[in-house]
Amino acid sequence: MGRVTESRRTIRIRDGAVSTRPDTLVAEEPLEIRLNGKPLAITMRTPGDDFALAAGFLVSEGVLVEGHEVQSIVYCAGATADGVNTYNVVDVRLAPGVVVPDITLERNVYTTSSCGLCGKASLDAVRTTTRHPVADTPPIRVEPALLAALPDRLRASQQVFDRTGGLHAAALFSETGELMDIREDVGRHNAVDKLVGRALTDNRLPLSRSILLVSGRASFELAQKAVMAGIPMLAAVSAPSSLAVDLAAETGLTLVGFLRGPSMNVYAGEHRIALEATTVRS
Amino acid sequence: MGRVTESRRTIRIRDGAVSTRPDTLVAEEPLEIRLNGKPLAITMRTPGDDFALAAGFLVSEGVLVEGHEVQSIVYCAGATADGVNTYNVVDVRLAPGVVVPDITLERNVYTTSSCGLCGKASLDAVRTTTRHPVADTPPIRVEPALLAALPDRLRASQQVFDRTGGLHAAALFSETGELMDIREDVGRHNAVDKLVGRALTDNRLPLSRSILLVSGRASFELAQKAVMAGIPMLAAVSAPSSLAVDLAAETGLTLVGFLRGPSMNVYAGEHRIALEATTVRS
Repeated sequence: MGRVTESRRTIRIRDGAVSTRPDTLVAEEPLEIRLNGKPLAITMRTPGDDFALAAGFLVSEGVLVEGHEVQSIVYCAGATADGVNTYNVVDVRLAPGVVVPDITLERNVYTTSSCGLCGKASLDAVRTTTRHPVADTPPIRVEPALLAALPDRLRASQQVFDRTGGLHAAALFSETGELMDIREDVGRHNAVDKLVGRALTDNRLPLSRSILLVSGRASFELAQKAVMAGIPMLAAVSAPSSLAVDLAAETGLTLVGFLRGPSMNVYAGEHRIALEATTVRS
Repeated sequence: MGRVTESRRTIRIRDGAVSTRPDTLVAEEPLEIRLNGKPLAITMRTPGDDFALAAGFLVSEGVLVEGHEVQSIVYCAGATADGVNTYNVVDVRLAPGVVVPDITLERNVYTTSSCGLCGKASLDAVRTTTRHPVADTPPIRVEPALLAALPDRLRASQQVFDRTGGLHAAALFSETGELMDIREDVGRHNAVDKLVGRALTDNRLPLSRSILLVSGRASFELAQKAVMAGIPMLAAVSAPSSLAVDLAAETGLTLVGFLRGPSMNVYAGEHRIALEATTVRS
């Protein structure tokens, strides 16, 4: 875990003054994810929780649904010229009998997370592969005041961000606002995959009574990952994209954006937000 | 170009008050990039400048170096069930005789932009495919005060961000600080590809006397795109990653991070920064 940050010599310029000192940077290295020994995708990630990242990635792609489907996850190959293991190649072996969808082998799945020729096609593809439909019964119901408190809890638990300023964070909260897990990574999608992969290993999928909070924007890809893990509510500190909203509306995901203190926008799935707990103006 | 933003009904919660109104969102749709008719990559992008995006992507991947290597770029196929063109599939036809590197056809290049099994391998791969080495002769030389003024110029020119809060921006400046071009996109890498693709079409590659400014963080991928376009200086408003710094150091790219008013950090290539123009403290 020592590679989460790295130190580099840096020249600082502050108000006309120049100084040289070491600066702490967020570590970024490529991870090759293999499925049954076959290279599947490469992602730029912050080292650490690599097994969870690989498992969560395979949940997002519709390959894995339950923990017992994984036979083993190991670091492999990935050696430098002088034979040192780089810990940048992970192989996920599936348990006997687990069927691998075609999509994951025929083309690099990293981009087929979008995978359509138009927004509609891509939304259809997601729904087709979702084996954890958003199905919280009865639906979770969250007061805006509870949501308003979550970003501060996320920031309070962000360990690496304070040192580097360079990490995205994703956190899972219970429907009562308890922090269940948090991951930081140079890539937002990786942070979410790490959360989901850990949940898979712990047999906590689908995450049907939890809230996923991300530190940045809500892209289509993040909304898709929430849906694939059965998460009923995605909240983002910043803006959502049009396609993230469309996906949320079509799959029943609750999507909250611009969550900043008591202010927030609800873009889809408002039945999970206890709006009556607020003063209603037209 | 009307699809750069889209409107969606939104429930706003502000200080306990609830209201419903349309909200302007940044548009996000998948773009399939084909090379000589063969699907190559899919990227989630903000519609607009799609030909430039495709061309710039192929520069980043080492396929294109000069404008005359492109025979044509067209929208194709990509129709919905009822036959309407979605304008989400672009085919780039290369001029006769242009050789396509193997890497771009055998696997989906979108992730092979990182393409190594460890940081070192990936850095080597980038250097190998770089046909526009960073070679500004004599090197550009920029005063910190000039750099300090660029983020405000970027923001002043960001048209869509103000309406959506959801866009990344990338801009090219001359070595004297003039804004040459700016692009906004839901993905930072797309914004850079659009800049570079436009430059390719206009026969302005390599961009050896320009500064690339990005609104967010400086990842390995963005540093790589700068190198591939022959850009000698990359400045980011936020933090760089370790691998971005390593790539900059190895390729001779000047990398500036945390560019915020008169404060900035120089991570590599400081010979292009006129440090003597500032008061030097140890």
